[in-house]
Amino acid sequence: MKITVSRKAHFNAAHRLHNPEWSDEKNREVFGKCNNPNFHGHNYQLIVSVRGEVDPETGYVVDMKLLKDLIKEHVEDAFDHKNLNLDTAEFAKLNPTAENIASVIWTKLRAHIDGSLDLKITLYETERNFVELEG
Amino acid sequence: MKITVSRKAHFNAAHRLHNPEWSDEKNREVFGKCNNPNFHGHNYQLIVSVRGEVDPETGYVVDMKLLKDLIKEHVEDAFDHKNLNLDTAEFAKLNPTAENIASVIWTKLRAHIDGSLDLKITLYETERNFVELEG
Amino acid sequence: MKITVSRKAHFNAAHRLHNPEWSDEKNREVFGKCNNPNFHGHNYQLIVSVRGEVDPETGYVVDMKLLKDLIKEHVEDAFDHKNLNLDTAEFAKLNPTAENIASVIWTKLRAHIDGSLDLKITLYETERNFVELEG
Amino acid sequence: MKITVSRKAHFNAAHRLHNPEWSDEKNREVFGKCNNPNFHGHNYQLIVSVRGEVDPETGYVVDMKLLKDLIKEHVEDAFDHKNLNLDTAEFAKLNPTAENIASVIWTKLRAHIDGSLDLKITLYETERNFVELEG
Amino acid sequence: MKITVSRKAHFNAAHRLHNPEWSDEKNREVFGKCNNPNFHGHNYQLIVSVRGEVDPETGYVVDMKLLKDLIKEHVEDAFDHKNLNLDTAEFAKLNPTAENIASVIWTKLRAHIDGSLDLKITLYETERNFVELEG
Amino acid sequence: MKITVSRKAHFNAAHRLHNPEWSDEKNREVFGKCNNPNFHGHNYQLIVSVRGEVDPETGYVVDMKLLKDLIKEHVEDAFDHKNLNLDTAEFAKLNPTAENIASVIWTKLRAHIDGSLDLKITLYETERNFVELEG
Repeated sequence: MKITVSRKAHFNAAHRLHNPEWSDEKNREVFGKCNNPNFHGHNYQLIVSVRGEVDPETGYVVDMKLLKDLIKEHVEDAFDHKNLNLDTAEFAKLNPTAENIASVIWTKLRAHIDGSLDLKITLYETERNFVELEG
Repeated sequence: MKITVSRKAHFNAAHRLHNPEWSDEKNREVFGKCNNPNFHGHNYQLIVSVRGEVDPETGYVVDMKLLKDLIKEHVEDAFDHKNLNLDTAEFAKLNPTAENIASVIWTKLRAHIDGSLDLKITLYETERNFVELEG
Repeated sequence: MKITVSRKAHFNAAHRLHNPEWSDEKNREVFGKCNNPNFHGHNYQLIVSVRGEVDPETGYVVDMKLLKDLIKEHVEDAFDHKNLNLDTAEFAKLNPTAENIASVIWTKLRAHIDGSLDLKITLYETERNFVELEG
Repeated sequence: MKITVSRKAHFNAAHRLHNPEWSDEKNREVFGKCNNPNFHGHNYQLIVSVRGEVDPETGYVVDMKLLKDLIKEHVEDAFDHKNLNLDTAEFAKLNPTAENIASVIWTKLRAHIDGSLDLKITLYETERNFVELEG
Repeated sequence: MKITVSRKAHFNAAHRLHNPEWSDEKNREVFGKCNNPNFHGHNYQLIVSVRGEVDPETGYVVDMKLLKDLIKEHVEDAFDHKNLNLDTAEFAKLNPTAENIASVIWTKLRAHIDGSLDLKITLYETERNFVELEG
Repeated sequence: MKITVSRKAHFNAAHRLHNPEWSDEKNREVFGKCNNPNFHGHNYQLIVSVRGEVDPETGYVVDMKLLKDLIKEHVEDAFDHKNLNLDTAEFAKLNPTAENIASVIWTKLRAHIDGSLDLKITLYETERNFVELEG
């Protein structure tokens, strides 16, 4: 039977939702307060989950410390205390919605996790809003 | 890849578990303290989740504000600070278990959410008891 | 140095805020949705804290199990799954606001806790509203 | 006996810690990642607590709805989805540390709360860092 | 439509991660601090979820009290305030990783839950590390 | 006005409550399951709070990073993944109740925090049991 192993982490960042192909008026209409040109910010909470068979020698699907280190290198060091729109290559041209941030994190981590394991990303933008994707 | 977007909300209500086709004795036996004829109550916590493709123009599966407004209109305004058994049409004849409340909320919201999106309801009756349904 | 020892518990109850000396109109004006004549309800979360010297033989200010048992006997058994207005003597004539419920719990427990210990009651009516009293 | 009544709220904002009288080097040394010139952000969680006598007619120290409305008008509408450094008069020249934000909120609310009541502000910058002040 | 019903519980236990077929050095290398020969411990939080059809007579998938009692008998009484390696038959020869503890709990409870119901186990070893399995 | 600044941290440890001057029978009677000779364990959550004047140059009472580093050096490195009774000098002869652990942490940190600042320790043994001391 397959087991899912999850690790929580967090990072604090500023962002602004904006589509440069739209007028300022349409941006304000669609994104509301999230379109503030001076940015706002969040304490993002991240859950990284991998699913696979338990290794009978270790009793692990994967070493949590490995997950912790991957998250630190590829997510926290990249996004913590950053302005996602201005300070990161990933969101220079991609709107940093929770959906898009989760997709970017999924793609970044997928490259470093064994292909036999499924990967799921859960990202809380606030305690009340969160997104999930898996593949 | 599809993404699930979730929004949390809450409402406070009184209820009583009771099957009018049973004797008082059987009701007490099956529902225990939850059968108190004078009602008891809960702070219900609700998570509404929709799953679909990300719109490349907005970076949204769905605008969280839309979810927030739908929950306010169809769940909070209908159930908050109410006696579910006495004050609502939905539970006049339906036993307000967590399972049935979640089903009613699913049906109410399903009518207002685009057919291309999956809908999942998670309902916490207490911090220790919760139910989920999706479709 | 004195140490404070705290124990969390919870109970689920229905209630209605109402002052029988006022008109229905004034009750609705002051208590709003909380005045619903059919009641509503909450998952109350309770923290009971006692403060005193550590007993050098046990390393305890007080045995947490004693606190747990006192809370069960005098609070949970009295109020859990009850309608505070209709099912309890304490609130037959006293408006069951969070302030008054906390005061009643303080008085009930004070009688069973050693006079050398301070007693503090914290009561969450919801995750967003809570009251504290000590003495 | 006096009772403390508390109400939780939240706002999401961007900020940057910076002392304009210092060199860039000293700012980076003292404030570290929090000095990022492009800002970062937080989901601030706020608890506003008032302490006083219970009114025997209402059973309230203060109507929680009054606290909720004061917080909305003077804190959420002022700071939510804002860049504290660029979008607010309060932090145009005051470093927006958690300590200073809490002090500003205390001063703003103190003017609208009856002088017979004590006021305490608790502000969580993250789940792990928070400040409190009262007077 | 099927509904999932979940119940939370908890137990506090000591454990040590160790593979007796490996050298001490390899054990330390793989399991790090978790290999401490004198043990360390956790507050394990458990969520037991069952999925099935709602019984139209009760409005329940399963009585939460039944789940609560099964968890008490088969998990809490067996593991709470125990040393998993020394005090339990289940982990005398099985490494008590979160994955293996969750598997053991799944197997223990599966025997007592109706075959028409799916069973899922979620086990938090810490607030930051958790595992899930279902079948 | 003085402000209190708090930082959360955590460590996982095994322990046993036991008074060597008592008989085994009395130890079992007083400490119950916590007297298990093979130990049990907890995820301890710690809050370290310091209270003082805000430095007008930094806007800080104390740099949170300093608190974080002190906690790591004097608490986490000393107690995390340890058996408090067997692996630490502090509890070789002192019963590791929550009260005594909090006192030890207070004394260890007091030596490294400026005398102008008050120090408070809050220690959660479980989500339901916690202790506080200040001075």
